Amino acid sequence: MTAVIQRELDEFLYQQVVRLIRQLQQQQLLRPGERLPSLRQLSSQLGISIPTVRQGYEELERLGLIEARDRSGYYLKAQHQPECRPGRLPLSNKPVPVRQQSLLEQFYQAVHQPGILPLGIAQPSMAQPSEKALLRTMRRVTTLAGQQVMHYGPIDGFAPLKRQLALRYLDVGLSLQPDDLLITNGGQEALAIALQAVAKAGDVIAVESPTYFGVLELIETLGMLAVEIPVCPDDGIWLADLEQALASQPIKACIFSTAISNPMGSFMPDTQREALVQMLEQRGIPLIEDDVYGELYFGAARGRPAQCYSCKGLVLTCSSFSKTVAPSYRVGWLLPGRYGREVWRLKRALSFASSLLNQWTLCEFIASGEYDRNLKKLRQALKLNKERMMALVQQHFPAGTKVSNPQGGAVLWVELDKPADCSLLFQQALQHGISIAPGTLFSPSQKFRNCLRLSFGVRWQPEVELAIQKLGILARQA
Amino acid sequence: MTAVIQRELDEFLYQQVVRLIRQLQQQQLLRPGERLPSLRQLSSQLGISIPTVRQGYEELERLGLIEARDRSGYYLKAQHQPECRPGRLPLSNKPVPVRQQSLLEQFYQAVHQPGILPLGIAQPSMAQPSEKALLRTMRRVTTLAGQQVMHYGPIDGFAPLKRQLALRYLDVGLSLQPDDLLITNGGQEALAIALQAVAKAGDVIAVESPTYFGVLELIETLGMLAVEIPVCPDDGIWLADLEQALASQPIKACIFSTAISNPMGSFMPDTQREALVQMLEQRGIPLIEDDVYGELYFGAARGRPAQCYSCKGLVLTCSSFSKTVAPSYRVGWLLPGRYGREVWRLKRALSFASSLLNQWTLCEFIASGEYDRNLKKLRQALKLNKERMMALVQQHFPAGTKVSNPQGGAVLWVELDKPADCSLLFQQALQHGISIAPGTLFSPSQKFRNCLRLSFGVRWQPEVELAIQKLGILARQA
Repeated sequence: MTAVIQRELDEFLYQQVVRLIRQLQQQQLLRPGERLPSLRQLSSQLGISIPTVRQGYEELERLGLIEARDRSGYYLKAQHQPECRPGRLPLSNKPVPVRQQSLLEQFYQAVHQPGILPLGIAQPSMAQPSEKALLRTMRRVTTLAGQQVMHYGPIDGFAPLKRQLALRYLDVGLSLQPDDLLITNGGQEALAIALQAVAKAGDVIAVESPTYFGVLELIETLGMLAVEIPVCPDDGIWLADLEQALASQPIKACIFSTAISNPMGSFMPDTQREALVQMLEQRGIPLIEDDVYGELYFGAARGRPAQCYSCKGLVLTCSSFSKTVAPSYRVGWLLPGRYGREVWRLKRALSFASSLLNQWTLCEFIASGEYDRNLKKLRQALKLNKERMMALVQQHFPAGTKVSNPQGGAVLWVELDKPADCSLLFQQALQHGISIAPGTLFSPSQKFRNCLRLSFGVRWQPEVELAIQKLGILARQA
Repeated sequence: MTAVIQRELDEFLYQQVVRLIRQLQQQQLLRPGERLPSLRQLSSQLGISIPTVRQGYEELERLGLIEARDRSGYYLKAQHQPECRPGRLPLSNKPVPVRQQSLLEQFYQAVHQPGILPLGIAQPSMAQPSEKALLRTMRRVTTLAGQQVMHYGPIDGFAPLKRQLALRYLDVGLSLQPDDLLITNGGQEALAIALQAVAKAGDVIAVESPTYFGVLELIETLGMLAVEIPVCPDDGIWLADLEQALASQPIKACIFSTAISNPMGSFMPDTQREALVQMLEQRGIPLIEDDVYGELYFGAARGRPAQCYSCKGLVLTCSSFSKTVAPSYRVGWLLPGRYGREVWRLKRALSFASSLLNQWTLCEFIASGEYDRNLKKLRQALKLNKERMMALVQQHFPAGTKVSNPQGGAVLWVELDKPADCSLLFQQALQHGISIAPGTLFSPSQKFRNCLRLSFGVRWQPEVELAIQKLGILARQA
């Protein structure tokens, strides 16, 4: 055995056991139907306690990878995943208007119905809630700041928060001046302002396919057109497809996620981010970079925002605290590149300043180190949830179902065999108290009818497992 | 003497003394240079204590209405206000594009400079801060609500807050369903969404003249044109002028304040509001009603929002907690009339939900009765500040200066003799650590160069009096 337990890692020991067994399986050193080492055996081989090994085995059992057989130990189960990842889509050959209000309205209504298990909405921070620490911070802030915290804050944001954010960008080699950063009412306002700064009604905007429906709704609301660029399940958009689209269509701007795409969960490598920025800046086309999941990577590091590779100031980076700490605070930010003046003015005209109290609290939350401690725990919790939910989907959904393997974030993209209709599945799931996000929301051209997005950004509990099981049954009937 | 002290009124007794003497002066029962009743005399006549009478006289002295003469008592001063209110302006004969970024940017930068006395920005709640009560409420909410308060709230707003607001509208005879109300990120977002729901780039929008610069900036940002309708210092816009403009210009929508206009401080009588709504609905033209100062009336009652008179659903009412409790919370609301669907969708696309924690806190603040208690004290404080600041302006500004007599809100509109240039005055005042709002900000057509707006929404302190004195000196030099 080459893999060994490393006590200095962040990973829990039992998770290292999980990883070890998966490795053995992948290397085919352990094959379906074979018996795993006994608890005692592995405990003495690895120098860890028997309960720790048992915890790892129990987790593997939950994940559906192994099974316990009475008085005989644990066995590796058969897996049905020869090609389980979503496939490559063809590039669209023309832009389309966006019209999908009615399904979206039903979807949003469902999310806020009481008693509904919200697997449809992406709220990663719920996997590892930090509200106690945050509220402690808020109380400290209100005591210290007094009346001042009730005043209008500056329109471009609370300067100390901007400073904290600028400091964080230094870690990825980005040196920002205070004017290079504007605070917004959450990530959605950042996207809305960025898009209005670079394009107008009638313009063609390149988006990922599938893409976050908030982007599509924004394009629809502003009277623009969308052209879809297929996303590779691993690496973000296919650059060759983008190049082809740029050559043939009058693209005015692009909105892509470089870090963790939503819903696909792909992660664009740094070299590819650099190539993307070069391709667009050469042609003078702005890139709006949706980086809201940037801190929720499962790999070794967060990767450098595309912003780092910009030479001409044509990259606008949008991010937010909504996915990492507090959706309810509505605090996001925008690095506007060369569009500082337009962006500042749009913010002032459209919504004036953002909540000062919330900004001040988040500023203290970062400064005190709580934010980073929380992020670390959140990434761990999300990664674990992902493994669990992927395994449950593979176990309960019909054969032929494909599922993404997200490199971060909080959602799985599930592709059923055609001609399954997930809008119907959405309605049926609702009747069982579960909300999901049907695939058609993620495309302006009625693609992805047979797909759905599931959020693993939840507090893990038996109800979640039962819900996936129920969804699997419904999917088999579909 | 017909006027008597009424102990059951909200008004402090000493303020009733102030009112009595002003009445005597207006009725010319007491004339400039004449001696006021002695403290002892008035005390026994009115049945109140000598210190209370003295407090009233001291206030009158601060207001510059009377003066104490050594060992001889108090005397009514001579007043130079034969026609002290701003005059009527002619109606513009064509719409104009809005372009005033550069002055506005300087203005906003000035407001947030440390150490500047902010007489330029309207923050009425600062006259009677309620941050302690509000923070107590917030702590209660966070304890009660727990983790839930960190989640995304519904896009159209926190339902219990919507209910509280709907209950308040019942008092003015408006019966609302939950869908008749949408929560926004402050009043500016409410205006932005309302305007985008009813008009598009290139459309002509009727505005007050002078009008709040946030409205002008919004029109500019959305690529619309403005046509200015003069405001009467007492009653809001001149309806005859509006009628004339409607007949001759392609007005697509109107943005007016019906309650307290900003900067003029006029208050449209209910009958006139009704006539306004009829005039517009007959022609199928939407009215966006800016009601952010609606609760800050100095008269007997708040008046009915124009919304109450709408038959066709063409009135959109915008309001906010920013002027009454907490500018920093960024919570406003919108009654969209028949534009519910458009407005809901715009909110979702442009900024998603508003801060749940802040909404929840304000909901509790209303439900507990604190909001109304606070409003009552705030109106008293503002009214007193108004009297003080008006008197100081009359005392220190050059002869010929006209000043509005606002019926509520937090600002005075001051008109200097032409050709004074208040943009210059703005720069000079800044060098003395005072920010004011120069008049040209309030018109897209370079009107009001000789005007300025002064905020009395401040904690009254000697610095404020010194600042008005200093402004008076600068104005004399202008």
